[in-house]
Amino acid sequence: MLLYEGKAKKVRKFGEKTVLLEFKDDATAGNKAKHDIFLGKGELNCEISTMLFRHLNKDSFKRSHFIDRVNSHTQLCHRINIIPLEVIVRNLSAGTFCKRYGVYKGIKFKRPIIEFCLKNDDLNDPLITEDAILELGITDRNTLEQMTLDSMHINSVLSSLFKKMNLTLVDFKLEFGNTYTNEDDRIMLADEICPDTMRLWDSDQNSYDKDLYREETGDLLAGYKIIRDGLAAMGLND
Amino acid sequence: MLLYEGKAKKVRKFGEKTVLLEFKDDATAGNKAKHDIFLGKGELNCEISTMLFRHLNKDSFKRSHFIDRVNSHTQLCHRINIIPLEVIVRNLSAGTFCKRYGVYKGIKFKRPIIEFCLKNDDLNDPLITEDAILELGITDRNTLEQMTLDSMHINSVLSSLFKKMNLTLVDFKLEFGNTYTNEDDRIMLADEICPDTMRLWDSDQNSYDKDLYREETGDLLAGYKIIRDGLAAMGLND
Repeated sequence: MLLYEGKAKKVRKFGEKTVLLEFKDDATAGNKAKHDIFLGKGELNCEISTMLFRHLNKDSFKRSHFIDRVNSHTQLCHRINIIPLEVIVRNLSAGTFCKRYGVYKGIKFKRPIIEFCLKNDDLNDPLITEDAILELGITDRNTLEQMTLDSMHINSVLSSLFKKMNLTLVDFKLEFGNTYTNEDDRIMLADEICPDTMRLWDSDQNSYDKDLYREETGDLLAGYKIIRDGLAAMGLND
Repeated sequence: MLLYEGKAKKVRKFGEKTVLLEFKDDATAGNKAKHDIFLGKGELNCEISTMLFRHLNKDSFKRSHFIDRVNSHTQLCHRINIIPLEVIVRNLSAGTFCKRYGVYKGIKFKRPIIEFCLKNDDLNDPLITEDAILELGITDRNTLEQMTLDSMHINSVLSSLFKKMNLTLVDFKLEFGNTYTNEDDRIMLADEICPDTMRLWDSDQNSYDKDLYREETGDLLAGYKIIRDGLAAMGLND
């Protein structure tokens, strides 16, 4: 049973407490203003996200929905209730941040900027303050703090990892949730971490992520393959 | 010498450390998509803003740019460097907040929501996080804290005041700045507080503010006069 179909993933019910996460070949940009198919993107993202989730699980971060990769483009995951917030972690200015505030890309922040956005395509995922999240009952203060701490931790781990590949983790998006049965009240990292949901630059600010497609600056699949191969070369396991 | 002309005010240099603030009859909405003239609006706003600044100055809040009212539509004020942030205080959901998050108007918040927006008409005054304010060097952490505390205090004082008129202070916008000569490093309340920059509802959610014009629900000048007369009837001095 299909539980959810998003821009780049399908979520199918699989047993009571687990789901199958299928990575699609679709690429969209500008909140679906652009839409194309890249044969093999789903598989690359599934491989990359698998390697990153396995790496995070090893690295003391034990709370994610990821269980196993079951085929080229599908993961078995815990079924969770997603908290309808996107956490954006920004180490350098890029993308929406630059457009929103009229600033240049590539400003290096002294400390990472954390942004919460309400997950709502119709409203274009608007930025939301912590005050508003609490007052609208989207989640509670403890959960917000845990999401912030987890995101900062993940940022450290992934930034170090990509630095070994001579890449800078510019920004990325995370989603969190609670177990579907609520048998555990701690939150879990969910969704995916892949070049669709993060920006990676080399020292000349060349992108190895979805900006290749958004900004039409190069071959998306070639960029994603470099990330996949680089992670694999460091011994990360898909 | 004209230092600045905004949507509803002109600021003229007057001596070294002071300015004349002229309230205009222009009304705009939707970031200037609508524009009309209401003869007498400038005078009403000048009277109302004068009464509210005098009331705030009396009520232990001594730090504002306001010095005196010099004619029907003009105030003498300290010349200041405005911090390019708008502080929005929200007691109930309305306006941009409802549009941004797709929620009904009139949700009563347990605690006021404070929002910072970057003051930039071209960018449509975007919401900005405290992290981003600090990283972009717009102001420092102490100033942000002071702006937050001052805004909460002003909210209490003005909410109590309007309650006596059986009106609810729904939300309002404040601006702060530093003295032009930087001889005092504390921030000052600046700009104006009037029905152009706040929402006031009676118990049936009828507006006595610029929503009369934005939403075309009634006579703007009649609404503003009710506010002016109500404040005067309580002994506030213009």
